[in-house]
Amino acid sequence: MPMDSTRTATDVLKKKKNGSEHPAPSARLPLLETIDSPEDLRKLPVDKLPSLAKEIRTLLLTEVSRHGGHLAPSLGAVELTIALHYALATPQDKLIWDVGHQAYAHKVLTGRRNAFDSLRQHGGISGFPRISESPYDTVSVGHASTSISTALGIAIARDLKKEKHDVVAVIGDGALSGGLALEGLNNLGSQSTKMTVILNDNKMSISKNVGALSRYLTRLLTDRRFNKLKTDIWELLGNLSNVGIGIRNMVHNIDDALKHIVIPGKLFEDMGLRYFGPVDGHNVGEIIEVLRFVKDSVNEPALVHVITTKGKGYRFAEKDATKYHGIGKFSLSTGTLDAKPSPVPTYSKVFGNTLVELAEKREDIVAITAAMPDGTGLGGFREKYPSRFFDVGIAESHAVTFASGLALQGMKPVVALYSTFLQRAYDQIMHDVALDSLPVVFCIDRAGLVGDDGPTHHGVFDISFLRTVPGAIIFAPKDEVELRDMLYTAVNYTKGPVFIRYPRGKGLGLEFPDQPREVPIGLPEKLTKGEGCAIVAVGNACEAAREASAYLEEHKISPTLVSARSVKPLDEAFYRELFTTHKHVVTIEYNTLTGGFGSSIGDLLSSMQLPKAPSLLRLGLPDRFVEHGSLDILLKNVGLDPESIAESIKGFCKK
Amino acid sequence: MPMDSTRTATDVLKKKKNGSEHPAPSARLPLLETIDSPEDLRKLPVDKLPSLAKEIRTLLLTEVSRHGGHLAPSLGAVELTIALHYALATPQDKLIWDVGHQAYAHKVLTGRRNAFDSLRQHGGISGFPRISESPYDTVSVGHASTSISTALGIAIARDLKKEKHDVVAVIGDGALSGGLALEGLNNLGSQSTKMTVILNDNKMSISKNVGALSRYLTRLLTDRRFNKLKTDIWELLGNLSNVGIGIRNMVHNIDDALKHIVIPGKLFEDMGLRYFGPVDGHNVGEIIEVLRFVKDSVNEPALVHVITTKGKGYRFAEKDATKYHGIGKFSLSTGTLDAKPSPVPTYSKVFGNTLVELAEKREDIVAITAAMPDGTGLGGFREKYPSRFFDVGIAESHAVTFASGLALQGMKPVVALYSTFLQRAYDQIMHDVALDSLPVVFCIDRAGLVGDDGPTHHGVFDISFLRTVPGAIIFAPKDEVELRDMLYTAVNYTKGPVFIRYPRGKGLGLEFPDQPREVPIGLPEKLTKGEGCAIVAVGNACEAAREASAYLEEHKISPTLVSARSVKPLDEAFYRELFTTHKHVVTIEYNTLTGGFGSSIGDLLSSMQLPKAPSLLRLGLPDRFVEHGSLDILLKNVGLDPESIAESIKGFCKK
Repeated sequence: MPMDSTRTATDVLKKKKNGSEHPAPSARLPLLETIDSPEDLRKLPVDKLPSLAKEIRTLLLTEVSRHGGHLAPSLGAVELTIALHYALATPQDKLIWDVGHQAYAHKVLTGRRNAFDSLRQHGGISGFPRISESPYDTVSVGHASTSISTALGIAIARDLKKEKHDVVAVIGDGALSGGLALEGLNNLGSQSTKMTVILNDNKMSISKNVGALSRYLTRLLTDRRFNKLKTDIWELLGNLSNVGIGIRNMVHNIDDALKHIVIPGKLFEDMGLRYFGPVDGHNVGEIIEVLRFVKDSVNEPALVHVITTKGKGYRFAEKDATKYHGIGKFSLSTGTLDAKPSPVPTYSKVFGNTLVELAEKREDIVAITAAMPDGTGLGGFREKYPSRFFDVGIAESHAVTFASGLALQGMKPVVALYSTFLQRAYDQIMHDVALDSLPVVFCIDRAGLVGDDGPTHHGVFDISFLRTVPGAIIFAPKDEVELRDMLYTAVNYTKGPVFIRYPRGKGLGLEFPDQPREVPIGLPEKLTKGEGCAIVAVGNACEAAREASAYLEEHKISPTLVSARSVKPLDEAFYRELFTTHKHVVTIEYNTLTGGFGSSIGDLLSSMQLPKAPSLLRLGLPDRFVEHGSLDILLKNVGLDPESIAESIKGFCKK
Repeated sequence: MPMDSTRTATDVLKKKKNGSEHPAPSARLPLLETIDSPEDLRKLPVDKLPSLAKEIRTLLLTEVSRHGGHLAPSLGAVELTIALHYALATPQDKLIWDVGHQAYAHKVLTGRRNAFDSLRQHGGISGFPRISESPYDTVSVGHASTSISTALGIAIARDLKKEKHDVVAVIGDGALSGGLALEGLNNLGSQSTKMTVILNDNKMSISKNVGALSRYLTRLLTDRRFNKLKTDIWELLGNLSNVGIGIRNMVHNIDDALKHIVIPGKLFEDMGLRYFGPVDGHNVGEIIEVLRFVKDSVNEPALVHVITTKGKGYRFAEKDATKYHGIGKFSLSTGTLDAKPSPVPTYSKVFGNTLVELAEKREDIVAITAAMPDGTGLGGFREKYPSRFFDVGIAESHAVTFASGLALQGMKPVVALYSTFLQRAYDQIMHDVALDSLPVVFCIDRAGLVGDDGPTHHGVFDISFLRTVPGAIIFAPKDEVELRDMLYTAVNYTKGPVFIRYPRGKGLGLEFPDQPREVPIGLPEKLTKGEGCAIVAVGNACEAAREASAYLEEHKISPTLVSARSVKPLDEAFYRELFTTHKHVVTIEYNTLTGGFGSSIGDLLSSMQLPKAPSLLRLGLPDRFVEHGSLDILLKNVGLDPESIAESIKGFCKK
């Protein structure tokens, strides 16, 4: 789809073949060196596979330590990945990775070994599966909990087309708490199609996993009596397989009855899936055996329960899988991050600190996150107010409706989510929060382009879809001090939902005043007074606007600079004054132009029907998905770096 | 929230007290007549309650037969509703209805008996629970699967505030397949809070229920051995309750072990909920007994499994619960609808017929619906192509991602959903369909205002949120012939998703040509050529525009009339010509003005920076939720009936 492709992964691959930019560490990887595709892999004897796993880990660790990436999930899935490509006839057999952040070994084994040092870099290979990159990437992905539904569609299509191939979805126990995964499971269990779900169970999503299913899985593992008995039963049944029909019926009945007693995974059997496991996810031979059995002998939906350790094979990551889930450059030998901790806090950190500060005086404040306690900056709140902190797991829809229930009873819920994941709660915002004007506060982290994680993680639609919500207040702070002020204002607001959107990364390093201040709702802030041209920037786009202004000054354009502060509502009097005193108005936002802030300014302007209306230039993200890469490169590509902004404004004002 | 309230339910109630517009059929309802609140109900002896249930059914049948409404769900829940208000101390105890279409008896018992003849009429009481109507309506609702999450929020708030009251969610087995409900269940099961889920199991959502959970519930009912054994165990345990700690521990262990053997509902127990049931949902005494036991003795999450018959007590509805789910006026004695079947087909019907027609030649076409096979018009397709028809249950997110899997393998999935429910699949459209430009066709029924069902069912945001989807094609047919043409065009389109939005209700009664025709993507259609003013209308708003034009002609304004056809993309050349040849441009859409079609025309207009740009008037729905009532009244209220449109345009063109 509409995606920029200045340099495709194929280009990278070609380049690598002709002469690599960085030498691959192939010297240390004699087995891996021989594998350009799963076909090569399948030529190896099984007893070589543990050594191969070791080499893959070496490569992953080397490259991720140099560039950053999703380390722990991929380290945990090395044996599983080898086993899958070994036991299945990929790419004819379809392999669907949930989320996709565990698919590095998959990339390495499917012809992208030599391109692996370009991982997550602009023009290089994506950190997630991408159809455009490889026929082995069945689906492009990045959000959690989609794999079962996608795989079921693929399996049903195969049946309808009377084709023969396997379809296997690999989903973590964390992603299983997502409503989409549960809907998929419920639908799958009532089908008779051949399809396998691999449950990659590491007791983790990004943080420690939560929820009843997770508890169930733990109980299942710890109840050894059941496991022992199960083995006995299967052995007994196996020995009875060559007997007459009467006995077979009896055995079937016994099997049926016994299932109701002790066989692990009965919950999944009750849901209509044949359950296999638990399997040691780091014993590649054992996984292959089970996968082959399922492939050859099971013609209905099956679930293979594989136990893995997140971060496996790298002791620092095994100890702290959350830290190494997604990580920047680090030292292999010490496990420490290359980047020195900055004295300037991130927006996430400021959000978390402010919430702790406000919660001291306000007992009604509760915090809700969907499997992102650390990413959203709520770690401190969790520690200080454990009874008022709720991690609901990967379940954004539930997070919002749960918050509505809390608000109904007079609590002040603050929901912290990433912008891109909030897309999963659009209806809940509309139906469960806005319809009754419930005062839920939404803190929307990672709004705007996020960089390396690419199109599935950029938060560039929130302004557009949230603007449609009746009664919504939408704030965007220009800096971290304003984030604090806006959060303070939001928790004091009682008439409906308030949304605060802010970017990934650091603030400006400002001093915080003693007390937070109320931000007037709707009213923008004039930062500088110029003439002719007015620039209205949303949130952290104010910084780019400032830099662009400095450049424009050199070209004799002296713009008025305005921080929008409120995306919704808009203060009509303020804008009327702005429109009548400037010939040119420019809006800047890190959001799609479609239905975005600029569009709302355009609507306001045209509705005023001024006799001498200024002309309007809307700067923002184009109507296509934006690729992955460093923020600098991406902003330049979409014309939203300060220089490009200045050039656009210069051209616009000269007309 | 921002909701029009020309006449509130409270007004209605007051009016009723002072002198009713229609006499209530109280003569035949001696018990019901005495009940103005659940407090009155709780004064009745239990043995009177079956008679009360009968009277409530009489009232429901009388009123719904006169005005239409959600009959079958409410008939099925009469005893359950009586039992709930009898056993619980409502409104201190919180009762949360899922969807809310089963809550008519609840309305009757909570002070709205005399207002019941205003049900679903403008200014009368809503067909769904509404906070604004009654303190007994804990939450306003209309969409499925929200109750567990809301109730959990309420329960946790109670715990934090150290209050004491019960929280009970009532959810149907159909709604349980929704991802939000499953997320809620998963979260609830890992909490230790006191809260009860009543599973109102009638093997139905709106259509026959599907999915693995539904199968499980059926098995659970049929497995009588387990029920018998369970009773024995509970009795045994009951008798042992007064013994020493050693024996109690032993009993606990036995209990634990036995649970793993046969106790019905083990799936729910595995999910962390105490399971009670199955209970006969039409034996009011039995339900009360179980509810009291749970209220008094269970201090953790519990699930009470209640078996009901949808449509109970009215033989026609018991036989065909789908027909009587939501129904218009009908004859009580014969069960036949008052409205004669119209020779003019509905848009839903035309969609269904066309899909059958196209599927004859195209084996790759598959149809997907989320529990709405009949509502969306897919009944005929299901009959003719059962293997290519998929009802995934109430699971809109899954429906879309499942479709993406089908499309990945070369099928042509057509997803039929109501506009308001498509809000639940925004992220799936973005992430699972649009990112890879998968050619999934979306047929969006009930777009625009729907009338009696009110704000939770109006489909007035789809244009705005779908416009943000990169690469999306959005069509809106002006009549039913164009719907056929657009569907034909959509299934032939291979480059990405196509969305077709059309209204509830009948088409214009046009003749269908032999063959459907391709509709050019992006290009509007000029219906009449006028001068000075151009009206661009979206979909069926073209009819209102036509009528408004006729009126304007009388006032010497002769507008050019354009059917937008494509909401996205927009044909720049066409609009440039339109903008340069008219002084006034008016857009009309049955969608919110925020980020809607008019907004996109405004953006296009301003981006062209024409030397002499026309002025723009955008007509559409206001930025608030629109109440329930007949379509005529609602359109008048929001200024979108032909006369109001004409008046607005007249004023605009005179400026």
